[in-house]
Formats: sequence, structure tokens, C-alpha cells
Amino acid sequence: MPSEMERCIESLIAVLQKYSRKDGNSSQLSKAEFLSFMNTELAAFTKNKKDPSVLDCMMKKLDLNCDGQLDFQDFLNLIGGLATACHDSFLRTSQKRI
Amino acid sequence: MPSEMERCIESLIAVLQKYSRKDGNSSQLSKAEFLSFMNTELAAFTKNKKDPSVLDCMMKKLDLNCDGQLDFQDFLNLIGGLATACHDSFLRTSQKRI
Repeated sequence: MPSEMERCIESLIAVLQKYSRKDGNSSQLSKAEFLSFMNTELAAFTKNKKDPSVLDCMMKKLDLNCDGQLDFQDFLNLIGGLATACHDSFLRTSQKRI
Repeated sequence: MPSEMERCIESLIAVLQKYSRKDGNSSQLSKAEFLSFMNTELAAFTKNKKDPSVLDCMMKKLDLNCDGQLDFQDFLNLIGGLATACHDSFLRTSQKRI
């Protein structure tokens, strides 16, 4: 049985593969694939964003080499950024309780 | 029901919290907590490392501010590095099959 962390690493790879293959067989996310990923896997985050330009802006910031595609490193930066925001929020809530 | 990516983000936070609280109530991993994490959650990786100095070396490289503790960013760099290595290996294997 894989550990919780091994399952998490597997998920990161499998989810990128799943969405990056929607338009062709690349290992990178196009803009349309990124939007599909965000609106499906992170719908709790996107549903609060009334302005669609927020996702355009995120794509541009994540796409470090400006080729219109997100590679695995860009994808990890996205998940790492969201995880950090959740973790910081969790720490602030915990500290208020003390 | 959370999505696969939401579960993954939850796991990253929960696993760091679990191991960082083994020695006291900090949100960072001490050396002992890091070793406990590696030998439990990533045992498939550590069991092939006969030389115990490999983990010492990893701890030093991850601890960017050299305070003897790994914070959430250091922890994400570790998981991101392992995920990248797995992803690259997966891509190489896929390309060989084509």
C-alpha cells in the first residue's frame, strides 16, 4: 500500500497527465486545459472568482517561459502556492485559538 | 466530496502537521522529525539508500535558512523535487515506448 505522501505524488503526476492530454498528447497544459483543470479540480477556488481575467492572469504568471503552456514545474508552483496559502491560513486560525 | 487535487493539498498540510508535532508543537520539521517522515512516508525511497549520510545531506540542502528546521516551503521543495524526478522518469519511459 502506498503511503499518503506517495499517493499525493502519484496524484500530482496523474492529474497533470489527465488534463494535458485533453487537446493532443503533450505533457503540458494549454490555456484551455488549464481552465478545464482549474474549473474541475479547483472549483472551490474558481467559483469565488467572478472576474474571468483572474485565471488569465494566473496562467500568465505561472507560464515562466511565456510559451503559452504550463509544464510540470509551473504546475507544481501553482499547487505549491495554493497549498502555502491554505497552510498559512490554517496557522493563523490555529494561533487565534491559542 | 473534495477533488483529487484538493485531497492532495490537504494531505501535504496534514502530513507536515503530523510529523512536525512529534517533538513539541511547532509547524516545522526538526532533524528527527524529518527522518521519521522520510522513513515512514517515503520508505520506498529511503530503503534503497544504504548510506545514512544521504538523508543528512538532503536535510542540509532543503534547510535554506540553515536553522535546523524545515518549514512548509522547504517541505514543498522536497515533495516537488521527488515528484519532478518521478515525472521525468515517467516521461522517459513513455518516450521509449513510442
